[in-house]
Amino acid sequence: MIKAAVLGATGYAGIELVRLLSNHPEVSIEVLGSQSFAGKKISDVYPNFRHVLEKECSVVDMDAVSKCDVAFTALPHGASKDVIPALLETGVKVIDLSGDYRYDKVEVYEKWYGQKHSSPELLRESVYGLPELHREKIKSARLIGNPGCYTTCSILGTVPLLASKAGSTKNIIVDAKSGVTGAGRGLSQQVHFCECAETAKAYKVAAHRHTSEIEQELSNIAGEDVMISFTPHLIPVKRGILSTIYVNLNKPYTTEELTEIYKDYYKDEYFVRVMDPGILPEIKNITGSNFVDIGVVADERLQRAVVVSSIDNIVKGAAGQAVQNMNLLFSLDEKTALATAGFYL
Amino acid sequence: MIKAAVLGATGYAGIELVRLLSNHPEVSIEVLGSQSFAGKKISDVYPNFRHVLEKECSVVDMDAVSKCDVAFTALPHGASKDVIPALLETGVKVIDLSGDYRYDKVEVYEKWYGQKHSSPELLRESVYGLPELHREKIKSARLIGNPGCYTTCSILGTVPLLASKAGSTKNIIVDAKSGVTGAGRGLSQQVHFCECAETAKAYKVAAHRHTSEIEQELSNIAGEDVMISFTPHLIPVKRGILSTIYVNLNKPYTTEELTEIYKDYYKDEYFVRVMDPGILPEIKNITGSNFVDIGVVADERLQRAVVVSSIDNIVKGAAGQAVQNMNLLFSLDEKTALATAGFYL
Amino acid sequence: MIKAAVLGATGYAGIELVRLLSNHPEVSIEVLGSQSFAGKKISDVYPNFRHVLEKECSVVDMDAVSKCDVAFTALPHGASKDVIPALLETGVKVIDLSGDYRYDKVEVYEKWYGQKHSSPELLRESVYGLPELHREKIKSARLIGNPGCYTTCSILGTVPLLASKAGSTKNIIVDAKSGVTGAGRGLSQQVHFCECAETAKAYKVAAHRHTSEIEQELSNIAGEDVMISFTPHLIPVKRGILSTIYVNLNKPYTTEELTEIYKDYYKDEYFVRVMDPGILPEIKNITGSNFVDIGVVADERLQRAVVVSSIDNIVKGAAGQAVQNMNLLFSLDEKTALATAGFYL
Amino acid sequence: MIKAAVLGATGYAGIELVRLLSNHPEVSIEVLGSQSFAGKKISDVYPNFRHVLEKECSVVDMDAVSKCDVAFTALPHGASKDVIPALLETGVKVIDLSGDYRYDKVEVYEKWYGQKHSSPELLRESVYGLPELHREKIKSARLIGNPGCYTTCSILGTVPLLASKAGSTKNIIVDAKSGVTGAGRGLSQQVHFCECAETAKAYKVAAHRHTSEIEQELSNIAGEDVMISFTPHLIPVKRGILSTIYVNLNKPYTTEELTEIYKDYYKDEYFVRVMDPGILPEIKNITGSNFVDIGVVADERLQRAVVVSSIDNIVKGAAGQAVQNMNLLFSLDEKTALATAGFYL
Repeated sequence: MIKAAVLGATGYAGIELVRLLSNHPEVSIEVLGSQSFAGKKISDVYPNFRHVLEKECSVVDMDAVSKCDVAFTALPHGASKDVIPALLETGVKVIDLSGDYRYDKVEVYEKWYGQKHSSPELLRESVYGLPELHREKIKSARLIGNPGCYTTCSILGTVPLLASKAGSTKNIIVDAKSGVTGAGRGLSQQVHFCECAETAKAYKVAAHRHTSEIEQELSNIAGEDVMISFTPHLIPVKRGILSTIYVNLNKPYTTEELTEIYKDYYKDEYFVRVMDPGILPEIKNITGSNFVDIGVVADERLQRAVVVSSIDNIVKGAAGQAVQNMNLLFSLDEKTALATAGFYL
Repeated sequence: MIKAAVLGATGYAGIELVRLLSNHPEVSIEVLGSQSFAGKKISDVYPNFRHVLEKECSVVDMDAVSKCDVAFTALPHGASKDVIPALLETGVKVIDLSGDYRYDKVEVYEKWYGQKHSSPELLRESVYGLPELHREKIKSARLIGNPGCYTTCSILGTVPLLASKAGSTKNIIVDAKSGVTGAGRGLSQQVHFCECAETAKAYKVAAHRHTSEIEQELSNIAGEDVMISFTPHLIPVKRGILSTIYVNLNKPYTTEELTEIYKDYYKDEYFVRVMDPGILPEIKNITGSNFVDIGVVADERLQRAVVVSSIDNIVKGAAGQAVQNMNLLFSLDEKTALATAGFYL
Repeated sequence: MIKAAVLGATGYAGIELVRLLSNHPEVSIEVLGSQSFAGKKISDVYPNFRHVLEKECSVVDMDAVSKCDVAFTALPHGASKDVIPALLETGVKVIDLSGDYRYDKVEVYEKWYGQKHSSPELLRESVYGLPELHREKIKSARLIGNPGCYTTCSILGTVPLLASKAGSTKNIIVDAKSGVTGAGRGLSQQVHFCECAETAKAYKVAAHRHTSEIEQELSNIAGEDVMISFTPHLIPVKRGILSTIYVNLNKPYTTEELTEIYKDYYKDEYFVRVMDPGILPEIKNITGSNFVDIGVVADERLQRAVVVSSIDNIVKGAAGQAVQNMNLLFSLDEKTALATAGFYL
Repeated sequence: MIKAAVLGATGYAGIELVRLLSNHPEVSIEVLGSQSFAGKKISDVYPNFRHVLEKECSVVDMDAVSKCDVAFTALPHGASKDVIPALLETGVKVIDLSGDYRYDKVEVYEKWYGQKHSSPELLRESVYGLPELHREKIKSARLIGNPGCYTTCSILGTVPLLASKAGSTKNIIVDAKSGVTGAGRGLSQQVHFCECAETAKAYKVAAHRHTSEIEQELSNIAGEDVMISFTPHLIPVKRGILSTIYVNLNKPYTTEELTEIYKDYYKDEYFVRVMDPGILPEIKNITGSNFVDIGVVADERLQRAVVVSSIDNIVKGAAGQAVQNMNLLFSLDEKTALATAGFYL
């Protein structure tokens, strides 16, 4: 059994991780770290866990964590990097769900997050935890920077066009729609039910941090600097992201040809489901699951691909991907505890 | 491995059954019966199943079913009883999700369903599949009448008060609120998104069929004829029922005392979670799970208990309960494939 | 033109009042009182008002209010009674949307609100602002206690049965479902979109303050002390209340006969719409409007009436009723600015 | 009083028109045409109209229509052109909400709608009913082709950039999110509550008819052929469209400069509200109202404008615009019955 600690267990990403791990046959949850709910049972904070997992939350105790094999840090951006160096010293492997260890270059982090990085050497060592792109490195990593939600959805939706050179690196536009769990459990006027039901909005236009993460990975794939327009939107669903991605094509393609490029690129990827021509992703198909659904259409009038990709932001965009990374790290079948259909209903 | 057939696999109860069975370690799904989608893969009808279960749907083939150990019939009321006698003759055990085999007395069925029953002898043989009340009989049944959704929620919420004689059998009122999956997948004006978002309504007041099922079981427990007011409502959620139940008390009780009666009555029941005083069920805690959450409050001014019970109508109210019954029928741990937390998010 | 001040203009009841008054041909809004947004334009706080009403909010200035004809106080319970005596001294008429001036007896207020009342003489003078019951007194009042939302819906749904002596005063049960605007604009975990979408719950069972208000009015009508069970629920809609009311009947009645009792009782009431037999209220029919929809069913098996009544909690349950009261107070047609259909969509 | 006929009164656009006209001080609704509900009162079909408008629906009677001043045709695409020639012969003015009379060129209609046009001469005569672009022509028209919903939102969001030559005509991308009323009242699996709550999807990618309408108007403004990528999405709200529009800039601009271009272009337009820099439209601000909210951001890294525009699809995108056109046609103040704030809640 893999002994696991979850730090930040009572946030939305944290509790989804607890949900997935509580169904994992090879994992025992040893530590549930929660600043706000220390001393309370997780099943008192989230009563859906009554009779399933009734363990008590605690403030982080390095001694307890040191007896674990892996620690997941689902802490606010910035807070992760304060605790992770100490975690690593205890010998546990760390999968960090924040933005703190996702970057190749410390300057990019510091520019987009507006703060100094306190452990740039660890940032250099860390592996970007997107298995579909970095599987081999993940297997032997000590510290994994688990990708962002918009990021995972947008990168996986775009990569085959750049890798195949079918798509141009200029004029890439990602228009993403996210559920409200993406805003976290904290309170603000914008997450009040009456302020976000029956409405939708764009936010942080041309300014969202995930832009930099997407650009990093697309640039690596393209072998040149890629800059994109990324526009996040909030829509009234709890879970899920749907990204619509516009990529100009270097020559004419049909929808069938583009679909073939995607199917070929992802032919060995269990968690990527490329839709047949004429079929497009819908959020309900992936909610609660670790799948990425991708559909592509050639707009032949304009020699442009329109790609739609969809993930559950707190599963493949956070907790599920973290479990997938853990499975790789501990040489388990990558699908363990993750090969389940989306909720749909 | 238990070989299972699901008839009516593409309705909402059917597909939820498929979801649960596809996660069941001891079951292989052999037949996916669907009149409307015969010849199509289940994953084309419900794309959330791509990469998870890609089996083809078929019209019902008795030969194929006869090689199974169990058949689940998730067919419309009335249609079940036309096919079940033939199914039983093949030797499979049958768990029927319709209303056709839930009654002790054929007259009650015929009155509330407005049709003759074509196999009254099977109705007599069938066992009412509510494990919390009829576990032993279920284990050796050949035909199980799986209870209705409103029914399960209302019966389990009321029984401890009648069994303990704390509650009066007069003036019992059940006010139930259900999600829209309860109306099934068929199309009608009332399930149009624009007609049922941002609204709520009562329907079939003093006339809903589940009334008769609830009265049957409560009368059995009370040892006298019990008649109740049952009012179903439609609220804009996909899954879940919340029943608020009003029972006059035979003498004064405190909330703590009533809670003790419930905790005691359900002390061995994994799927019934009695809330501590001051805490009440919420639908989100049970969505996607097989749990029944129950909270009780004593209205001391009026010597009346107000009980709130909640289940997922397509899990504990249909597919999950069917799996629980199957587990009993095949001597598996009753919790197999069902011991998971609700979705919450 | 009637000069109006709205105190607490940026809460949900306040802003709905501003919406209704901005469409009122005989009213000019002179003061928009807001502690939190003083100095900001109302259209910056609620951008739906851009180009329609761009007036600045201010802290309450008694001088400005004294030049008005009427002041609406949409302040938190308890805060109203601190400011209203001073308001009345300036000579304006006051319509208070809080619970502070709704009671015949100061003891009832003090018991259910858990605080001393600082101006019991004004409480005695104040008129309960439910026009359907107290129209004549309202016309000449100086201080109106505008009824609560659950209250309006429940009283108007029950009164004809008690006034006609068809219904028993014992065993009255009101099971009410409310939209989230009822919880106000303030932040709390329970109003987070992800915590209240796709769920429902009961709260304050046997303990909600509106119980006392409903009992007061029903007792007045019945001519005896009436005590009820009142259970509020939160459902995932923004606006609207649906109350299901159970009243035992003193002798057998049909649905048609009960409907006749209601139609007769409300025959002169524009804002009360009694549904024909077989038709029941739905929230969408009243959202955004000042109507109360009522349907009644006789459960002949049990000699019990099941009544369903529905209002928009922030219109007929707050702002619309306040405008209706104002219309009466200033001898306008009671329907002015209120004779509009619900949103439906 | 303007005598009005509404044909197709019981569809979603039709009933919203009835809602707006019933509040219009200068209009009397004389005819409510409905094939499906002829003989029923409109208030029986839409009970929100009880006590407000209880007129009976009828099949279209040319005699009755001929006594009207204006007929609104809210019929399915294709059906409008079958009835409109006869309507015009009676002498009424016609405002058509379908796509049948929106095109400058009959070939464009026939290509995108896949059918012959039976009255091309009327198509030529008809005026495109977007007051912000064609006000003068509308005033003297006999037949107005009322624009589509996506169309209105997208054109008004883009025009200032093309008119000012700030924006390039190449690479314009419109990513639009629509509420479910846009799909109409008819039944289909995709509008089932359980199929469209808690999800989102793109549809008709690179193939939606409104593309051609947007391109026509943008080309007219730009003075050259403009082709765009237009992607419609369905999101779980009832009303409202939010369009995110990407336009490459011909030279560097700041957000402030772009905002100035928009404010200047729309300085005399009451129904267009250009947001200040840093503020972006949200659907809730325009629901129920005739406003178009527009915000613009300069993505300086990419020399690209990101414009967000939002309308209520059944008001400014259908019924409200039709009333605005009627006001112009009959020399009323353009704002009559339309100068109201959005619902917000």
